[in-house]
Amino acid sequence: MRAIIFDGTEATVRDDWPEPQPRDGEVLLAVRVAGVCRTDLEVLAGYMGFSGVMGHEFVGEVLNGTGADAGPSGRVVAEINCPCGACDMCRRGAPNHCRTRPVLGIDRHDGVFAERVVVPAGSVHAVPETVSDEAAVFVEPLAAAFRILEQVAVTGEMRVLVLGDGRLGQLIARVLSRRAGELMLVGRHAGKLALAGAHGITTARADAFESAADADVVVDATGTPQGFTTALAAVRPQGTLVLKSTFAAEGGLNLAPVVVDEVTVVGSRCGPFDRAIEALATGRIDPTDLVSARFALSEGVAALEAAGNRDNLKVLIDVA
Amino acid sequence: MRAIIFDGTEATVRDDWPEPQPRDGEVLLAVRVAGVCRTDLEVLAGYMGFSGVMGHEFVGEVLNGTGADAGPSGRVVAEINCPCGACDMCRRGAPNHCRTRPVLGIDRHDGVFAERVVVPAGSVHAVPETVSDEAAVFVEPLAAAFRILEQVAVTGEMRVLVLGDGRLGQLIARVLSRRAGELMLVGRHAGKLALAGAHGITTARADAFESAADADVVVDATGTPQGFTTALAAVRPQGTLVLKSTFAAEGGLNLAPVVVDEVTVVGSRCGPFDRAIEALATGRIDPTDLVSARFALSEGVAALEAAGNRDNLKVLIDVA
Repeated sequence: MRAIIFDGTEATVRDDWPEPQPRDGEVLLAVRVAGVCRTDLEVLAGYMGFSGVMGHEFVGEVLNGTGADAGPSGRVVAEINCPCGACDMCRRGAPNHCRTRPVLGIDRHDGVFAERVVVPAGSVHAVPETVSDEAAVFVEPLAAAFRILEQVAVTGEMRVLVLGDGRLGQLIARVLSRRAGELMLVGRHAGKLALAGAHGITTARADAFESAADADVVVDATGTPQGFTTALAAVRPQGTLVLKSTFAAEGGLNLAPVVVDEVTVVGSRCGPFDRAIEALATGRIDPTDLVSARFALSEGVAALEAAGNRDNLKVLIDVA
Repeated sequence: MRAIIFDGTEATVRDDWPEPQPRDGEVLLAVRVAGVCRTDLEVLAGYMGFSGVMGHEFVGEVLNGTGADAGPSGRVVAEINCPCGACDMCRRGAPNHCRTRPVLGIDRHDGVFAERVVVPAGSVHAVPETVSDEAAVFVEPLAAAFRILEQVAVTGEMRVLVLGDGRLGQLIARVLSRRAGELMLVGRHAGKLALAGAHGITTARADAFESAADADVVVDATGTPQGFTTALAAVRPQGTLVLKSTFAAEGGLNLAPVVVDEVTVVGSRCGPFDRAIEALATGRIDPTDLVSARFALSEGVAALEAAGNRDNLKVLIDVA
């Protein structure tokens, strides 16, 4: 079959990749549309030492299931973590933190930039008819945005700041703006800020933003160490800093303000698919205007390059 | 009067420092015993750009109060933050985070390494007769240890790790060991670990400690960037890392595990004096075996040097 393969050095489109074979408890899916995430670009840079079929954001269609719990049929999305069900974190009810989890297209499990993919049957969620493929491909990142509401009690009295006007920052701003008393999205790109503004979100240019250290909650979705420092300066004493960016500070990083101001830093990763699907099905969130470009699977290398261009938001890959 | 003065360059004992004059709402105290804290050593290194009378841990005696709310008489301890009572953080009920607070011996307020000191009347707490001067001087750091219990719900099902066998780490281990299911203190000094062991606390040498990434709560009281990295490796996914150390990482610092493992990092500073005083009064906590050395106020420079010696735990200064 056709797939985008990362061999540890470079990504290429190959037409001779072996068909995946579902084992007991797994389902075989035909990928319809996939989305490129920043994590895919990190994989290209060596993240997790991954090699194989790239990609983890997608909507597909069930071709066949095996075993008793084969899951739904029709159009589906699937969680990216493949939990063991037996380790301490799985038993604790946190399968996304399974100690040995492979992760689609990121860690020891082939991903979704391919004509077909195999996933655990328990990872699959049905997509309602009212949700288009273009919307459904956002379920995974939208769930990551909703994850914040599971971790932090955002209320109508709160002032919330979202740093980063990229794909994830845009989704987070749309989700949190329905809960927060005040919300502002701070970014570096006029066009992206204008898009958020069209959704009624207050925005500010990063170079013109002046912190009053009075935000109850600051979400760092910049993907840069500078974002963390800006977030620390913007949060009020005893406030909450939600960290969505995985980064390693190459220079120094001053954590003293975390202690002096008793800030709570909350790491935040994968979230509830059901809430994301519901928000798409009811139309409360429509992410489809975040799509900047679409490519065929055969143009996969160009799709990855386009996703690396900071002028673009979401890049989609049409597979079927 | 006699006082230890930091002039921005060096600390000296002076006998000609002007007597402090209480204003309305302030009380004049005679210092009886003071304690040297790591923060005092940071002041010597330039922290907060402080100059004046050093020191903030002490027990004293009320000489006279002015105004209607002159506070208690007799032996007292006093909070280190001097809140304005009017800013947003004071109105929020968080006077320790007052936006403009001077801090005894740390920021724009003369401290307690002196024969006499003036403090806000509202900052003063009476010391019960059953609490010796040697114990009372630990109220401020012991309150900082109790602060953790205000921020994190430590239960009997939890595995807690305290990193750092210094003054604060020892107090934290004694406080948390009464709540946690399991607690281990990890440090670098055999003698300090033996002292904790004498209190029934399980200990491990840092160079022999192997993390299983399974601690529900890790408290970093090492004061080093390495401590933070060790703490991150030791905490379980979705666990809590309490940060008591103010440090600036000079090299790189990788915060990606905070996100990937959804760790909550809780900055923790000043705590409840009333709980600390009660624990000392009932004898539940007896910190006096942490005293390594005592100096007269006239030997103040030697006291600061002794506190900088890692072999020592608490160094006291006898004033009266």
